[in-house]
Amino acid sequence: MHMETGALSQARLARQFARVRAQTSALASNLSAEDCALQSMPDASPLKWHLAHTTWFFETFVLECFARNHAPFHPSYRYLFNSYYNAIGEQYPRGQRGLLSRPALDDILRYREHVNVRVAELVARQALSADALAILELGLHHEQQHQELMLTDFKHLLSLNPLYPVYREAVPGAPAAATRLNWRAFEGGLADFGHEGADFAFDNEGPRHKHYLADFELANRPVTNGEYLAFVEDGGYRRPELWLSDGWVAVTSQSWRAPGCWREREGARFEFTLSGLQPLDAARPVTHVSHFEADAYARWASARLPTEFEWERAAADVPLQGHFVESGELHPRASPDAPLAALFGDVWEWTQSDYAAYPGYRPAAGAVGEYNGKFMSNQYVLRGGSCATPRSHIRVTYRNFFPSGARWQFSGIRLARGREPAERGD
Amino acid sequence: MHMETGALSQARLARQFARVRAQTSALASNLSAEDCALQSMPDASPLKWHLAHTTWFFETFVLECFARNHAPFHPSYRYLFNSYYNAIGEQYPRGQRGLLSRPALDDILRYREHVNVRVAELVARQALSADALAILELGLHHEQQHQELMLTDFKHLLSLNPLYPVYREAVPGAPAAATRLNWRAFEGGLADFGHEGADFAFDNEGPRHKHYLADFELANRPVTNGEYLAFVEDGGYRRPELWLSDGWVAVTSQSWRAPGCWREREGARFEFTLSGLQPLDAARPVTHVSHFEADAYARWASARLPTEFEWERAAADVPLQGHFVESGELHPRASPDAPLAALFGDVWEWTQSDYAAYPGYRPAAGAVGEYNGKFMSNQYVLRGGSCATPRSHIRVTYRNFFPSGARWQFSGIRLARGREPAERGD
Amino acid sequence: MHMETGALSQARLARQFARVRAQTSALASNLSAEDCALQSMPDASPLKWHLAHTTWFFETFVLECFARNHAPFHPSYRYLFNSYYNAIGEQYPRGQRGLLSRPALDDILRYREHVNVRVAELVARQALSADALAILELGLHHEQQHQELMLTDFKHLLSLNPLYPVYREAVPGAPAAATRLNWRAFEGGLADFGHEGADFAFDNEGPRHKHYLADFELANRPVTNGEYLAFVEDGGYRRPELWLSDGWVAVTSQSWRAPGCWREREGARFEFTLSGLQPLDAARPVTHVSHFEADAYARWASARLPTEFEWERAAADVPLQGHFVESGELHPRASPDAPLAALFGDVWEWTQSDYAAYPGYRPAAGAVGEYNGKFMSNQYVLRGGSCATPRSHIRVTYRNFFPSGARWQFSGIRLARGREPAERGD
Amino acid sequence: MHMETGALSQARLARQFARVRAQTSALASNLSAEDCALQSMPDASPLKWHLAHTTWFFETFVLECFARNHAPFHPSYRYLFNSYYNAIGEQYPRGQRGLLSRPALDDILRYREHVNVRVAELVARQALSADALAILELGLHHEQQHQELMLTDFKHLLSLNPLYPVYREAVPGAPAAATRLNWRAFEGGLADFGHEGADFAFDNEGPRHKHYLADFELANRPVTNGEYLAFVEDGGYRRPELWLSDGWVAVTSQSWRAPGCWREREGARFEFTLSGLQPLDAARPVTHVSHFEADAYARWASARLPTEFEWERAAADVPLQGHFVESGELHPRASPDAPLAALFGDVWEWTQSDYAAYPGYRPAAGAVGEYNGKFMSNQYVLRGGSCATPRSHIRVTYRNFFPSGARWQFSGIRLARGREPAERGD
Repeated sequence: MHMETGALSQARLARQFARVRAQTSALASNLSAEDCALQSMPDASPLKWHLAHTTWFFETFVLECFARNHAPFHPSYRYLFNSYYNAIGEQYPRGQRGLLSRPALDDILRYREHVNVRVAELVARQALSADALAILELGLHHEQQHQELMLTDFKHLLSLNPLYPVYREAVPGAPAAATRLNWRAFEGGLADFGHEGADFAFDNEGPRHKHYLADFELANRPVTNGEYLAFVEDGGYRRPELWLSDGWVAVTSQSWRAPGCWREREGARFEFTLSGLQPLDAARPVTHVSHFEADAYARWASARLPTEFEWERAAADVPLQGHFVESGELHPRASPDAPLAALFGDVWEWTQSDYAAYPGYRPAAGAVGEYNGKFMSNQYVLRGGSCATPRSHIRVTYRNFFPSGARWQFSGIRLARGREPAERGD
Repeated sequence: MHMETGALSQARLARQFARVRAQTSALASNLSAEDCALQSMPDASPLKWHLAHTTWFFETFVLECFARNHAPFHPSYRYLFNSYYNAIGEQYPRGQRGLLSRPALDDILRYREHVNVRVAELVARQALSADALAILELGLHHEQQHQELMLTDFKHLLSLNPLYPVYREAVPGAPAAATRLNWRAFEGGLADFGHEGADFAFDNEGPRHKHYLADFELANRPVTNGEYLAFVEDGGYRRPELWLSDGWVAVTSQSWRAPGCWREREGARFEFTLSGLQPLDAARPVTHVSHFEADAYARWASARLPTEFEWERAAADVPLQGHFVESGELHPRASPDAPLAALFGDVWEWTQSDYAAYPGYRPAAGAVGEYNGKFMSNQYVLRGGSCATPRSHIRVTYRNFFPSGARWQFSGIRLARGREPAERGD
Repeated sequence: MHMETGALSQARLARQFARVRAQTSALASNLSAEDCALQSMPDASPLKWHLAHTTWFFETFVLECFARNHAPFHPSYRYLFNSYYNAIGEQYPRGQRGLLSRPALDDILRYREHVNVRVAELVARQALSADALAILELGLHHEQQHQELMLTDFKHLLSLNPLYPVYREAVPGAPAAATRLNWRAFEGGLADFGHEGADFAFDNEGPRHKHYLADFELANRPVTNGEYLAFVEDGGYRRPELWLSDGWVAVTSQSWRAPGCWREREGARFEFTLSGLQPLDAARPVTHVSHFEADAYARWASARLPTEFEWERAAADVPLQGHFVESGELHPRASPDAPLAALFGDVWEWTQSDYAAYPGYRPAAGAVGEYNGKFMSNQYVLRGGSCATPRSHIRVTYRNFFPSGARWQFSGIRLARGREPAERGD
Repeated sequence: MHMETGALSQARLARQFARVRAQTSALASNLSAEDCALQSMPDASPLKWHLAHTTWFFETFVLECFARNHAPFHPSYRYLFNSYYNAIGEQYPRGQRGLLSRPALDDILRYREHVNVRVAELVARQALSADALAILELGLHHEQQHQELMLTDFKHLLSLNPLYPVYREAVPGAPAAATRLNWRAFEGGLADFGHEGADFAFDNEGPRHKHYLADFELANRPVTNGEYLAFVEDGGYRRPELWLSDGWVAVTSQSWRAPGCWREREGARFEFTLSGLQPLDAARPVTHVSHFEADAYARWASARLPTEFEWERAAADVPLQGHFVESGELHPRASPDAPLAALFGDVWEWTQSDYAAYPGYRPAAGAVGEYNGKFMSNQYVLRGGSCATPRSHIRVTYRNFFPSGARWQFSGIRLARGREPAERGD
């Protein structure tokens, strides 16, 4: 799946394996079996399924392939917890993952422990081939992706509950004021983009290739709730001229009136968060907006979304720091005053680039070739990670992707615009 | 809702309340929180919802109306656990009952206990009005209906699980042979039907009224799996001429090939039961058939379904005995050799009668008037109770009702036919 | 299909054949090919299809069976114009009848002429068997049914056109005042219902059989637009307590606010008719109401719908006169002042009786056995014919049937109520 | 809408107006009113609607804006025939265009004539502004687009008719053999793409901008039916590994087994054409394939689809010649033996490029700004025109676009591949 063999030693991988697996389990540790069993929509999965599927990944691609005398933990799990790998076989239907009260959460936790032990034994007892190490490393990055999905899928489930439950208590903190929006200019030209080198990356991040950019400007920070509220109050959701045609269909057919987690109560605006319903904070980045909404907002603001290459160009010079899942505050924070704030972390930033193969792209051989490539259709690229992304998971070349209408991720907006000397004389 | 004040004394009602409420809780006592939280389809509800809604009934119709200084257990429960009583207010959408991980099962069990205590106090401390006693008694029959639905809804959920889980271990027993099918003849004439008297009955069972019957014959027992298998193997599901037009649409659009719980594995036939997957037992009554299937089978067998009046005429002379939920064997048993076996218990028997108001029918005043009457449209009457019905819940005048396509209940078939002297000379 | 051999002589049948066939063609004679080709919904058919299907009936059931050396007019018509006779073979899908620009209307008119000539030859040249005469007579009644459907299907199509086209110019006439609503009382008792004798009837009208009625009262005329408007203005479409549960689902999911052809323009109420948009006439019977609306109106009016037996009992003593299609005024008229006005003609009257087999019912042998019996499920009986029914088509035992939500027929409401001496002292 | 004022003189535009308008009418001249009224699916429109909408374009954007004292031809047409211009007002729902038997075809032809006369008068009597001339020219290109849609929409309608009607008799001709597939190599580098200059182009073709290409190779001609048949027979529609994930959903949910117009009869393969059903010709280009099918075929053939920039780079040096609608043969022809055959005409060639804005793109001001830009979402670019495209309508920079699943256009496949010296040693 990944184009390059990761540079990690076997010992270091073993330690990472233990750490990442424990982080996953910790996400569900304060939840009940019923919290972990429900599915809010076909696009989201029960937490129990995530716990099992990430384990299935190691059992199927590591233990089955590289461990001697491996016996399946359970004869049905190969089918039940296969997400979409046709090369492995049939899959239990995605939309029915919420119909499985059995295997119980406890069974799944035993499954996790069993596979953890076997993988640890495998790594401890024999020198693994480069292929085996590569798939093991891939499994860890795969698991980190599911860590983020566990938070967003569970947030979506809770957001449908009229009781507005709390997943984790809010982190207290002084409210921040929004910083001023301004523009940072970039010179265009021919440059190289995409991943290269020995470090791990998904196959869709490469190969590194040339791409030409015109001059452009990028906003210094993501769009805030306060700015987005002005769009809403200016009739943003009632004016078809601001929307892509498909976006307007989404607005009208789904009765969108605001971002996915905004709520109104007796005239006041609130935002549903993983810490329950909170007053809408004007200074924080707007999140849970679809690509359609991001695009419409940008048009209203006389700007546009950046391309993924513009984003990568800008991010290449910025240290990979930000507000990630490790902070424990599972909600985007107000951006600090900086030339290019919050490119990493807080909210994934929608780009105008469709999720397509880079020139020369080749999926990996075998079943893991299905990991990324087959989704290169009708999706758009998001960049930079969010407050639910593990810090060690993100890269400047990292390409996340979702369909235009998806809004249950921590997705937000950074504006871009062309740079026309005549117009921007100042 | 019920037309007559029940004849039970307040003290006896108090004892029944304690018993029925305990029976409900016992049904879920061996299940996990995740077992109780899932919803398999909009027509079925999570067990947790049943546990809460039956409690809501007593809180809303008894405590709110008759207890001094009643304070709601939780401000949202009035909305969350209202099934369909518009007079009480808005209802949480039926199809989303499976999206509520909170309130947790433990919260619902506390809610049950709280209301149990309050109702017990109410009954112990003051002499209740006839109205209060009547609604309390209604609540117990309501709760018994939900006891049966808990079993059928949960069976439906488990039936979708590829692991075929066991709810309760099978009751061991010697396999019985099917008894011979024969016909019992009844004289027609004008007679009285429906409930009358001081004992409890639902409002839809009355008023007692005259109805004319022609001579008819009734089968001595329900159709067996073995008989139904002959229909299947004779192309029953491939021959449109055997089906009502809407039934044929159901067959083709839902790909029906056999009753709802039949399964095939490597050429052998099995039946999914609350004790897991079992070899199909030819001697037991066929169950989980829709009205459409019952009607098609009857046509294939050169017979027809009885009307509800024919059924009631035949049952009027039969002792109210049979195989009910108290046996612990949650599956229909092979019928004994008797002139009219298994009219009560084992399987609900589809009639050809649509579920309509008896002449002079009037729903009760107030919100409980919504209990029965508003469903008198596009449903068919079933009679006699099943292996999941409490013995004390059923009556000869009892009218159950479901739409033509429903097949997740313990519904079966008893054949009828006209009696034409020339044809039936014996 | 019909139980009895019609009493008509072969010569008289031949004359009727010519007359009925010409009447059908005349209905479309002022319409364009495009008027005749469109389908407004799966339940309705293009006029061209009606013209072809009624011809197909004679070709398939008369010429194919009884004419020597019959060659099909076109090899595909057997398939294209078969409505629902599985015994004849596969059918072109109902919902796609509006996708056939070919065969052209002119081709269909040639088809009609061809079959007319062949049937006339057959009848002229040989003495037909009783079976042949019976199916020929059935074909004429079948064709008359389609004459009414042509008018209602076409009205439905035009009603969706924002231009509100006129099919036939309105018949001028002085506006009538509504007559006073009063009640006519009937004694109950055991009586005979259904068709008997040598005259033609559909198989579903028999056999004649005994049925017991309690005393009842019937309104002297159908409910008027003015009366129904009072229901609308009293919040009839906003009050769930007035509706059957399924009816309320229809109201909310389909946004019903008034009968199917009522329109509002700048605060004034209009009714779409086959003569275009007309001011709502308070004196005329309300029409294009579903069974759900008829039932809700009756509940609001503290009454109920009659059973089909009550209706037949009342109609048995009334001369078969009324306002039928022959008048040329294709809209119900204000009812005259009479003890039982407009039982026949004007609007079909919804009953509370589900469309079910009479005791002893047997469908005819062969393909025409599919004519009626297989629809005895989830439909309700309407009685009496409408302003779009041919006078010679209706009978006191005639049973029309449609699902509860259907409202594109000329369906209306006649109220009934029980008769309780204490309450009704007069 | 277009970025540049066209270079045509007013007199030349007047002549083109007359010619293009006449060509549109001629397409329907041999069809009946019913042929012109039907709608096969929401994506396609009745021919009558196309005839009216193209006229509406001139009435709304030319006569209303630039003619003195313009009175609307009909008060409802502004609403009825507005396709998707929200700035003009509400639109009659797209999916219901097939429900309008009125206005009649004759009315629409009168509408065309009326607007033709008024536009001709306008152009004859006054010197028009550059804006007026530009919108008039745009209207002609708009009308040419609809000319092609009339053929493809009507072909789709006929393809659903079991009679397989003929729109235009087939052009006789000697069958051609397929030419050999070979590859033409292109050097990469930074180059300019998109429209520039005074000639007409749609706004989405500009602005001209730089884009970098790696070396690549392009097939000398489109994929043939024979080649595609090999894919089908190799299990192409049964092997998920060949498909994008969304493509595989389309294959399974829509039961795709072959291109949209292929039919099987008694074991032989046919293709439905505008000349009726014809034996499948292995030498002709495959057509009526979706983007999903084009992508899957390319993967099976160890190649890929070209980007739109690769296509434009190759086409820039090729004369704009090919098989267009003027030939009268409304079906793609076998490609001649040429270094780069059939880039223009025959079949639109799917590219792997999503339909997105070029850098610096700005839609035109006003309502015509809705012409192109708002569809830049979830669609893919096709290049080169087809056998149904007018010769004068196509350009090397022309960008057609359709969603991934669309296959009722004359869409085909040209393969591309990267150029890797090591692998391609010749």
